[in-house]
Amino acid sequence: MLRTHTCGELRLEHVNQEVTLAGWVQRVRNKGGLIWVDLRDRYGLTQLIFEEDSSEKALLEKAAELGREFVVQATGKVIERTSKNDYIPTGSIEIKVTALEVLNAAKVPPFKIEDETDGGEELRMKYRYLDLRRNVIREKLQLRHKMMQETRKYMDEQDFIEVETPVLIKSTPEGARDFVVPSRTNPGEFYALPQSPQTFKQLLMVSGFDRYFQIVKCFRDEDLRADRQPEFTQIDCEMAFVDQEDILNTFEGLTKHLFSKVKGVELEEVKRMTYADAMKYYGNDKPDLRFDMKFVELNDLAKGKGFGIFDQAELVVGICAKGAAEYTRKQIDALTEWVKRPQIGAKGMIYAKYNADGTIKSSVDKFYSADDLQDWADAFGAAQGDLMLVLSGDADKVRKQLSELRLKMGEELGLRDRTVFKPLWVMDFPLLEWDEETERFHAMHHPFTSPKKEDIPLLDSDPGAVRANAYDLVINGVEIGGGSIRIHDRATQQLMFKHLGFTEEEAQKQFGFLMEAFEYGAPPHGGIAFGFDRLCAIFGGSDSIRDYIAFPKNNSGRDVMIDSPSSIADEQLKELSIQLAVVAKS
Amino acid sequence: MLRTHTCGELRLEHVNQEVTLAGWVQRVRNKGGLIWVDLRDRYGLTQLIFEEDSSEKALLEKAAELGREFVVQATGKVIERTSKNDYIPTGSIEIKVTALEVLNAAKVPPFKIEDETDGGEELRMKYRYLDLRRNVIREKLQLRHKMMQETRKYMDEQDFIEVETPVLIKSTPEGARDFVVPSRTNPGEFYALPQSPQTFKQLLMVSGFDRYFQIVKCFRDEDLRADRQPEFTQIDCEMAFVDQEDILNTFEGLTKHLFSKVKGVELEEVKRMTYADAMKYYGNDKPDLRFDMKFVELNDLAKGKGFGIFDQAELVVGICAKGAAEYTRKQIDALTEWVKRPQIGAKGMIYAKYNADGTIKSSVDKFYSADDLQDWADAFGAAQGDLMLVLSGDADKVRKQLSELRLKMGEELGLRDRTVFKPLWVMDFPLLEWDEETERFHAMHHPFTSPKKEDIPLLDSDPGAVRANAYDLVINGVEIGGGSIRIHDRATQQLMFKHLGFTEEEAQKQFGFLMEAFEYGAPPHGGIAFGFDRLCAIFGGSDSIRDYIAFPKNNSGRDVMIDSPSSIADEQLKELSIQLAVVAKS
Repeated sequence: MLRTHTCGELRLEHVNQEVTLAGWVQRVRNKGGLIWVDLRDRYGLTQLIFEEDSSEKALLEKAAELGREFVVQATGKVIERTSKNDYIPTGSIEIKVTALEVLNAAKVPPFKIEDETDGGEELRMKYRYLDLRRNVIREKLQLRHKMMQETRKYMDEQDFIEVETPVLIKSTPEGARDFVVPSRTNPGEFYALPQSPQTFKQLLMVSGFDRYFQIVKCFRDEDLRADRQPEFTQIDCEMAFVDQEDILNTFEGLTKHLFSKVKGVELEEVKRMTYADAMKYYGNDKPDLRFDMKFVELNDLAKGKGFGIFDQAELVVGICAKGAAEYTRKQIDALTEWVKRPQIGAKGMIYAKYNADGTIKSSVDKFYSADDLQDWADAFGAAQGDLMLVLSGDADKVRKQLSELRLKMGEELGLRDRTVFKPLWVMDFPLLEWDEETERFHAMHHPFTSPKKEDIPLLDSDPGAVRANAYDLVINGVEIGGGSIRIHDRATQQLMFKHLGFTEEEAQKQFGFLMEAFEYGAPPHGGIAFGFDRLCAIFGGSDSIRDYIAFPKNNSGRDVMIDSPSSIADEQLKELSIQLAVVAKS
Repeated sequence: MLRTHTCGELRLEHVNQEVTLAGWVQRVRNKGGLIWVDLRDRYGLTQLIFEEDSSEKALLEKAAELGREFVVQATGKVIERTSKNDYIPTGSIEIKVTALEVLNAAKVPPFKIEDETDGGEELRMKYRYLDLRRNVIREKLQLRHKMMQETRKYMDEQDFIEVETPVLIKSTPEGARDFVVPSRTNPGEFYALPQSPQTFKQLLMVSGFDRYFQIVKCFRDEDLRADRQPEFTQIDCEMAFVDQEDILNTFEGLTKHLFSKVKGVELEEVKRMTYADAMKYYGNDKPDLRFDMKFVELNDLAKGKGFGIFDQAELVVGICAKGAAEYTRKQIDALTEWVKRPQIGAKGMIYAKYNADGTIKSSVDKFYSADDLQDWADAFGAAQGDLMLVLSGDADKVRKQLSELRLKMGEELGLRDRTVFKPLWVMDFPLLEWDEETERFHAMHHPFTSPKKEDIPLLDSDPGAVRANAYDLVINGVEIGGGSIRIHDRATQQLMFKHLGFTEEEAQKQFGFLMEAFEYGAPPHGGIAFGFDRLCAIFGGSDSIRDYIAFPKNNSGRDVMIDSPSSIADEQLKELSIQLAVVAKS
């Protein structure tokens, strides 16, 4: 090695040892014939010292010429520092350098390589290799490393086998858009990159692998939002001979293991909630349970009192913000404007303040008596000092709006603490959801999800009411995993495809291999997949997954560092039997 | 769970317990009012018994109707067997079944689900999910799982960070052919799938990650041979602030760890050999060291004795097969025919047999006296009972031919034992190799490999003589890993590109990001990548990697199970701004 120790390793016990360190120059200070250099590597920071009286002149000159981010190798004796730095583990010592070699010079970096940087996002993406030098970014990827190792450790202990499934697979029309790969050896044909290894993991269950997992790259050619990447990573799992309860327990176990080993947090039992309740009480299939503020429906109390807006609404529903009665009129007006923004879309907002003196002041005092408002307060479980906020309108829409308002109030009141973790199983999702655009039902999860046995008769009469054996793991309002018990017989799978609008021929062409596999002895099975990038972000207390990905793409799907995608040679196109058909921009 | 125990778990200590098992019917025997069913799962085999006197009639009838590969759940009491089966761990007990449920029926499988199957390769590929049910195949993938976990364990303990590098990258003209992915959002542009994460892992070193690894899928659109797959897996590693010695030691450590933990084999120290010696003594840059049979050059002894073939040859070189003097004339003729096949291409073969009586009989007795032949024998270190085989011709070609012959003799003499493991570092590879087709030098390893400092002056005068800081790990004649110390400064990298025939503009366009990164403080670094599929095959004692891949593709790059690649919809092509240009077959 070009070093005897790392920059994070030396302590008082090493004093008088001759050592060699290598790393990057973080800082150079030059004062009164003394030069100090902070040398940095992944493991820490160590101070080098050059003294005019004892160091050779040439050495001192060399030290004086060091710039930020130079890569150097320094040899010298460990000595005790006179003024210790308690903030870093190596702060009690420094190295009195006797030999210095510049291993590589460095241009001045385009932004500061420090925890707080002055680089904008695009610049940091272009020089991602410099951004990754910053401790705060590198630590996020070290967290990810630890998450991976601990995930594998747990899964291995639980007898899961890690199996790599193929990346070059087959395009299917179901689900999101595929990335495709033209085949040179099969002209006119294409592979597709997997959106998930779904069918392969089910085939592994048919193969008797019993318990499978994989930490695997998946791909979706979707229009990107801030928090989406065209390639992302899943913890992908499947088990045979299980029912839903077994899967929930096994992966509650994984979640607890990760929190314990990676965060040192001992998680309480994961709560469970039906999809129906999540929508009714939180207006959201991924409620943030770090705070309560449940929805309270007020139709019985609010209607028929002459307030037209409520009378005409399908649903009047509100939340009670504990201790928020101190909100000023101005703050409440701002909230009203906020819910009326097009992104939220509410028509307006009603409030009722439970004052410290026991009176209730509302924006609809004209229509509701003090007793009426007291009834509201009782329904909300409101006490003095609380603020009730009420929306009304079309039931589905108003629930969504109120869900946004609830999250905003949680944020404003400081109830969404990033160091608190509230996991939740949301269960009994609908099997199908109606798609307005195509005017047909789509699989809410995917076409391999099994319906609840008792709901199968509804498939013909009321498809939207059929519940699936499907479940999501939600932490702090973020969906981090989802799965289901699968269909494992040909007849049910065919029925499902029929209800999704596949002709028999289409179903056979796309998924014939799976349905045929079900005829050769398929065991009952089910599984789950975790969004690994998002899981890491949650663990790191961050909203964005991008920092947890070593080399992310930007919002147009470009890697600005390597400048990809890019044009390819005509010869390549020819070999692949394709040609460009780019429509010129007018 | 649908079971209380697995099929591999029950022992005498469980007798009298009521248990439920679930699995596949391996075999049904029906004799004298008794029915035995062998129930199989990943964990083992357990015998179920149904008795006419005590089992209900309906139960017995159900059992009689079971077919091979039916999936069943059986409940009953564990009882001691009267005739025990010592060959399986559960052979002392059986289950007296009281309840039986068929979880899924099965059609008769297209081939036998047993260690020895009657299915041909294509059929087993099509029904890969059934082939994977066979213990011998599943065990190979369990070996792979164990290799992965132990690799990660070792790397984690050595402070390596596992980082996922992107799959959607940029196409480069250097090296093998890329698979490409048309970008929908950047019309006319393409991503490429990585042939290796080479540049990204080097950037991680520039980022100060210090030690990186990843077990990662890589892709090459090459014409496939029996033992190649378009997607394959690498253990990919890189280290900063190291020299070659550090890398050899670290990965010798990994190799020993894997052999110890996975195979229970304590490996001796890994031998080292220069590329020049490997070629001189074995005619091969990946010599199989399970046996000796080194090349002996005979120019001095064989030329000038009137034997025209030798006199005109650039090189006369042979091997000595210990104890092979008993080869008959017919066997030797067969060997001669074998080396003359077009795949080997030798013009002929000379032999000299050291008989038990001390005489030496050769096929060129006309030209060489007994003393001449004794001199040969001395050069070979041959003793009574040995067989010397000699080829001649153009030096490079004859070495290749003799290498093939050496391996064949090793095979025939039983010297290539699959349970013996002889690892070897081959070092000091040439930096460049001449490509006849393009009439220019190519990088033997890749363009990022550093030349040996002392050889840099040769770059202009004798490029083919420049040695690289490059090394391969070879086990039993198979290259399982290769790597190098990299270039880490812009000037050398530019020089390298120049010698590879890149214009400055091309180099900048393709690898500008890397050369720019080298200007911001790049540490000295190097690494290695192991072919993971091949490593697993070596551990499993197999020649073919295909069985170690869960869902392999056939020799035309097709997945015959899912029928991929396949055509895609016109709408997809249009969205991707490409069209087909398939040339009709004439």
